[in-house]
Amino acid sequence: MGLQFTIPEMHAYMAEVFPELGTRFEVLEIAPYRLVAAMTTLPGDLRPGGTVSGPTLFALADCVYYMATLAMVGRKALAVTTSCSIDFMRKPEPGRLIAEARVLKLGRVLSVGDVLMFSEGVEGAVARASLTYSIPPSASPSASSSSSASQKSARS
Amino acid sequence: MGLQFTIPEMHAYMAEVFPELGTRFEVLEIAPYRLVAAMTTLPGDLRPGGTVSGPTLFALADCVYYMATLAMVGRKALAVTTSCSIDFMRKPEPGRLIAEARVLKLGRVLSVGDVLMFSEGVEGAVARASLTYSIPPSASPSASSSSSASQKSARS
Amino acid sequence: MGLQFTIPEMHAYMAEVFPELGTRFEVLEIAPYRLVAAMTTLPGDLRPGGTVSGPTLFALADCVYYMATLAMVGRKALAVTTSCSIDFMRKPEPGRLIAEARVLKLGRVLSVGDVLMFSEGVEGAVARASLTYSIPPSASPSASSSSSASQKSARS
Amino acid sequence: MGLQFTIPEMHAYMAEVFPELGTRFEVLEIAPYRLVAAMTTLPGDLRPGGTVSGPTLFALADCVYYMATLAMVGRKALAVTTSCSIDFMRKPEPGRLIAEARVLKLGRVLSVGDVLMFSEGVEGAVARASLTYSIPPSASPSASSSSSASQKSARS
Repeated sequence: MGLQFTIPEMHAYMAEVFPELGTRFEVLEIAPYRLVAAMTTLPGDLRPGGTVSGPTLFALADCVYYMATLAMVGRKALAVTTSCSIDFMRKPEPGRLIAEARVLKLGRVLSVGDVLMFSEGVEGAVARASLTYSIPPSASPSASSSSSASQKSARS
Repeated sequence: MGLQFTIPEMHAYMAEVFPELGTRFEVLEIAPYRLVAAMTTLPGDLRPGGTVSGPTLFALADCVYYMATLAMVGRKALAVTTSCSIDFMRKPEPGRLIAEARVLKLGRVLSVGDVLMFSEGVEGAVARASLTYSIPPSASPSASSSSSASQKSARS
Repeated sequence: MGLQFTIPEMHAYMAEVFPELGTRFEVLEIAPYRLVAAMTTLPGDLRPGGTVSGPTLFALADCVYYMATLAMVGRKALAVTTSCSIDFMRKPEPGRLIAEARVLKLGRVLSVGDVLMFSEGVEGAVARASLTYSIPPSASPSASSSSSASQKSARS
Repeated sequence: MGLQFTIPEMHAYMAEVFPELGTRFEVLEIAPYRLVAAMTTLPGDLRPGGTVSGPTLFALADCVYYMATLAMVGRKALAVTTSCSIDFMRKPEPGRLIAEARVLKLGRVLSVGDVLMFSEGVEGAVARASLTYSIPPSASPSASSSSSASQKSARS
C-alpha cells in the first residue's frame, strides 16, 4: 500500500480540515504504517502543577494517529475516533512533545494502532495511547480516496 | 464519607484551579460517589462534519471525573489522571452536553470510575469513559485534605 | 427491540455453542439492554494469594456481555469481541461472582457496553469492563437473526 | 537495572507459582524491559468458528507481561494486574502464539507496558494489549508470599 501524502501535503491538508488545531503539528516522518510528529505546548495546554493537560496529550495522540491513518488511506477527512485508551506514565514537560504512531491493523473500515508520546530530549515515554478509527467508505464507485470527486461528496 | 463540596464551592474551586476550562462546567448534582455536570460546546470544540471533537469529550470526561473525586476527597488540586479509556458511540450534537460520573472505587491513592456523556435531550449516550485518578497524599501530618494549610503545601 | 431469549433458552444456547465454559453461567435476569449472571469459581480459576485470576474475570465479563448482546440480536454465535478494557478494583473472593452487563450502543455491526462484577454479598465492584463486540451480518436475505436458516449458515 | 531471571529460572518460577498455566509458556527472549514468549493453544482454548478465545489471549498477554515485569523486579509473585485494555485485530490461528512484551514505565509501585500477540509465522499482530501491574512493596524480612526461598531472592 503506497503512501498517500508527502510531509508538505499533510501539513497543507491538516491546515485545511482542522484550521485551528491542525497547524500545530510538525510532521517529522511519514513511512508505511508509521508517522512521527511534534507539537509545542501553549500556555492553555498546561494545568495546575505546570504539567501538560490530559486533553492536550489526548489531542496529540488522536491527531497523530489520524494523520498516520490518512497517510495510508488518503484524504478521508471524516475518519472518526471510535475508541482511545490512554495511559499517562510520566509528567511531561511543557515544550516540545514528540508522538510516534504505528498502524497495527488497517482494514476496510477500521484502523487500529498506538501512539507513544515523549517530551523531546527526555528518555521514557510520557504517555501511550491505543486508538481505533472508523474509516468512512469511499463515496464514489471509482473508490479513489484521493480524487477530488470523492472528497467533495465526503465533505458534504 | 461526607461530601467535601457544595455545588457553588465546586464552581468556585474549579474557577480557581482551572481558570480557563474550569469555568465551562455547570455542576448539576453532587452526591456520594456521583456527580453530574453540563458543558456547552464552543466553536473551537467542533470538527469536520459538525460533530464535537474527541479531545473535547475527553476533557469533559476528565474534568467531571476530577470533580466527582474531589467531591469525596476534598481540595486535592494535584490529583492527576493516570489512565482513561473512552468509547465514542454516537455523533454528539453541538450544544449542551451532560456528563454523569460515578466513582466505583475510592482508595487511599487511586480513584477508579466511569463517565457517561449525553447530548442534552437526546436518548443514548454519545460516549463513555473509564478513568483512573492518582490522589496525592495529604501534605501535612494532620492529613486533612481540606485544610488550607495542606492545600498550600500541595500546590507549592 | 424485543428480547430474543428467555433465561432457559439462553442456558441451552450457551451449552450448545460453548460446551465447556457456557454451562458455568447462571443467568439471573434478562431485560432490554441488560443481563445479569452468576458464575462460581473453580480451583483452576484462582491464583497465588487465593484471589480470582484476571483471565477468569475477563472470561466472565466477556461471556456475560456476549449473552447481553445475543439477548437483543438473537442467535449470532459468531459475534466476536473486538476490544475490552478492564479495571481490577478489589480483591475478589473465591466463590460466587455476579456480573451485570448493560448494552450502551447496539448498532448494526457493533455492540458497545460495560460489565460490573461483584463477589456475591460483598459491597463494591471487584472489577469493571467495557467491551465492544462485532456482530456478524445476518446470513440470509430475510435477515432474521433467529431463523434456523440463518443460524445454519452462520455456523457453517 | 539488571535482569533478575535467566530463561530457565523463569520457567522454573512460573511452574512454581502458577502450577497449571505457568508451564504452558516457553520464554524465547529476556532482555531489559522486554520479554518474548510462546504458547501453544489447547482444544479448550478455542471457540465457535475455530478461533482462539478472548480469555486465552488475555491470559497470554497477562502472563507474558507478568514475566516481563518480574524479569526486572525479581520474584514478586503477588504482583497483580490492575488494568488491561486489549484489542483483537485479526483472527488467530489455533497453534503456536508468540507474545512480545515491552515495559514502558517501571515505577516503585506500578509497571505499565504493552504486549503484541502473533500467530507464529503469520504477518500482522492478532491482538495487542496494554497492561498495568501493581508491584507489592518489598515487605519485611518475614513477608512470605510462597516459599521463604523465593522471598529471600525477591528481596535481594
